[in-house]
Amino acid sequence: MERKINLSEQEIPRFYYNITADMPNKPLPPLHPGTRQPITPDLLEPLFPRELILQEVSNERYIEIPPEVRKIYAQWRPTPLFRAVNLEKALNTPAKIFYKYEGVSPAGSHKPNTAVAQAFYNKAEGIKKITTETGAGQWGTALSYACQMFDMDCEVFMVKVSYDQKPYRKIMMNTFGGKVFASPSQLTSAGRKVLESSPDSTGSLGIAISEAIERAVSQPDTHYALGSVLNHVLLHQTIIGQEAMIQMEKAGHQPDIVIAPFGGGSNFAGIAFPFLRLNLTENQYIRCIAVEPESCPKLTRGEFRYDFGDTMGLTPLLPMFTLGHDFMPSPIHAGGLRYHGAGVIVSQLLKDGLIEAVSQNQQRCFDAGAQFIKAEGIIPAPEATHAIASAIDEAIRCREEGVGKTILFNLCGHGYFDMAAYDMYLSGKLNGESQVSDESIRASITAIDSLQP
Amino acid sequence: MERKINLSEQEIPRFYYNITADMPNKPLPPLHPGTRQPITPDLLEPLFPRELILQEVSNERYIEIPPEVRKIYAQWRPTPLFRAVNLEKALNTPAKIFYKYEGVSPAGSHKPNTAVAQAFYNKAEGIKKITTETGAGQWGTALSYACQMFDMDCEVFMVKVSYDQKPYRKIMMNTFGGKVFASPSQLTSAGRKVLESSPDSTGSLGIAISEAIERAVSQPDTHYALGSVLNHVLLHQTIIGQEAMIQMEKAGHQPDIVIAPFGGGSNFAGIAFPFLRLNLTENQYIRCIAVEPESCPKLTRGEFRYDFGDTMGLTPLLPMFTLGHDFMPSPIHAGGLRYHGAGVIVSQLLKDGLIEAVSQNQQRCFDAGAQFIKAEGIIPAPEATHAIASAIDEAIRCREEGVGKTILFNLCGHGYFDMAAYDMYLSGKLNGESQVSDESIRASITAIDSLQP
Repeated sequence: MERKINLSEQEIPRFYYNITADMPNKPLPPLHPGTRQPITPDLLEPLFPRELILQEVSNERYIEIPPEVRKIYAQWRPTPLFRAVNLEKALNTPAKIFYKYEGVSPAGSHKPNTAVAQAFYNKAEGIKKITTETGAGQWGTALSYACQMFDMDCEVFMVKVSYDQKPYRKIMMNTFGGKVFASPSQLTSAGRKVLESSPDSTGSLGIAISEAIERAVSQPDTHYALGSVLNHVLLHQTIIGQEAMIQMEKAGHQPDIVIAPFGGGSNFAGIAFPFLRLNLTENQYIRCIAVEPESCPKLTRGEFRYDFGDTMGLTPLLPMFTLGHDFMPSPIHAGGLRYHGAGVIVSQLLKDGLIEAVSQNQQRCFDAGAQFIKAEGIIPAPEATHAIASAIDEAIRCREEGVGKTILFNLCGHGYFDMAAYDMYLSGKLNGESQVSDESIRASITAIDSLQP
Repeated sequence: MERKINLSEQEIPRFYYNITADMPNKPLPPLHPGTRQPITPDLLEPLFPRELILQEVSNERYIEIPPEVRKIYAQWRPTPLFRAVNLEKALNTPAKIFYKYEGVSPAGSHKPNTAVAQAFYNKAEGIKKITTETGAGQWGTALSYACQMFDMDCEVFMVKVSYDQKPYRKIMMNTFGGKVFASPSQLTSAGRKVLESSPDSTGSLGIAISEAIERAVSQPDTHYALGSVLNHVLLHQTIIGQEAMIQMEKAGHQPDIVIAPFGGGSNFAGIAFPFLRLNLTENQYIRCIAVEPESCPKLTRGEFRYDFGDTMGLTPLLPMFTLGHDFMPSPIHAGGLRYHGAGVIVSQLLKDGLIEAVSQNQQRCFDAGAQFIKAEGIIPAPEATHAIASAIDEAIRCREEGVGKTILFNLCGHGYFDMAAYDMYLSGKLNGESQVSDESIRASITAIDSLQP
């Protein structure tokens, strides 16, 4: 039995899988915040290249991966699939546990899968610079890398509190040629406005988005890019699940359960959608479980509503599970999962009962992470520990029920830039996650009540 | 043409290659510092397991890799071999450049190759704890990981200046279960003695070695481990070159030049010795080049002498190229290359003209590293940039001479824990390397003159 299942470069998938083609209920359209009418593609043209806008609304089942993009993927793809033999032994479970390891990418997470594609399509339309926002820094790193590969400039607006707390993330973006600005900045009117009223503002993802968008529309040959939530971003990540499917076949097992961390949806979509296709079109039943933090429980405790994608209320209105765009999650270490809403496609799938969602608290996630390190020798990102925690839950259930199910989860990134978080965990000082009351959720959802679909 | 050449788990080598078997002149014996007589193996028994002592003096050409060790290697081995197509293009060279990437290991460098083997042999003889020293932290991380895999304790004495400057390295060792102490410490009489006379001592590798050895001999079921220099350490690293050889065959090319960074010798030995075997036994001529920092030039400017392996003068006397055990290299960022001597086997090979050595300065190395990141998208450790710099030199020479040689180098680790160094480089503040005068070398070698072989 091989512990690691590799694929050759030729086995990198040639198409992205677009689940919209197979959904029984298509996602509702995004609405213009002013007119409340479905937005038209031309509205997005100042921000995104035409090809990505087409992907955003496409119903084609398979969309070809450009050869130029596959060539860059080949640096780290296909990523390895591991059988977690030591973890199985430690848990004394009859379950078979597999994980797909995306931490081998140049940016250390799954994010370059879409960053490279987005950079390519922008480059193809003559764009010379891409702007974006980043919180903890994973996405900014991925986009900096991708832009460098296509000889484009990259500007990253990094939430000031992270900019100050995670200087190494900023430097990593710099090594890939990215220009990083603490947000709020003096570079944009949005930033200056915030700094005027709150000179000591530590920023927010919402402000950073506003700054990145303003920079994109106010400079020539410049576009904007997003790292999750949108349909085309989820689409690009399906390369993960497609590879995993071939690898599971080589391993001689099919997953009964597929698990991934959940922030905006691209991590989960990446590994789950290709397997979900079997449920939707071939009458299989593979459980697909999205794992969110207890402190940001949009899938398990939020409501399906039209809401803004950002906290400032600048984006189109999206039909999604949300906690309300004003919801402020605890400052947990899994920064990539601190988002108030869920991507439109995933929201529709959950509404239709086609996928499952659970939440995990931070302490439990780090406990699971530590158990994983001890058994498997890989240090996971805090985001990834959410999938590990739920995989362990399912494996323990298998032991209790005496059934040997096959579990596959997405180990979406390494934790080399999260040593401060591990330090707090190891010294018993982990904090930052507070209980979320029903009242606070109700209050922040009530604030968007008028936007009910 | 594939950019990345993978191997399957079955292709992990089954034997370590012991170059001593094929050396025209065997290495001179280590001497007891008191008697000046060759040391006997029993002298080493308080520190090392019997199997490793046998390997240290073995003349067998191939030594079997225990299946338990191969099983753990399989987590990250075989490591990928890359064709540096983008770098070739950027250099406009007819040379073909390949690199073996050891940064995919759990510790992020080639060090676990020997750490796992050493942990295994100790475990097999009933040892419950291993002590060691670490400078920048790569070796301590590798041994912590390896001990955890065999359920053993690990104590790491980390040079205090690094302990304070690189807290994340310490935490990484902690996540792998390693106990890390700032050295000098109050735990040993060696440490206490230093602290008595210099309470503010920032430590040195020499002091840390003394502390680790004292702890090993003063606790039950405890041994000591070293991360380079010794023959058995070099032996374990030959798995790198053996894999590279199969991968180069698959790629359809044989290297004309093999390049590796040089600290104590295990990095270089790892990739070069299996190729050097072809020179020694099959009349081939592959140039094998060891690259050391200009500020620690034992191979290019040192002398072949009997000298101590440590700065305190506690180890047996080793016949090696050395700058003198008192030599204090500049605090360059490539901490892993700041060692005054060269392993015994490599020294003999250099003395016999069977390998080459060059030196590179720090600024040039970081320039080469930045060029590599831009082309290949991987952030190299400062140690690894030395090999990159020389690979680029050779590739440029190929362009100038119009010959398409094949170059292979060891990309021994990633630079995720070296962001502070990259920050200094990117902001133009790189420093720490001073010119080494002939006088200073002469002075520190003269100090060991009485030990001339």
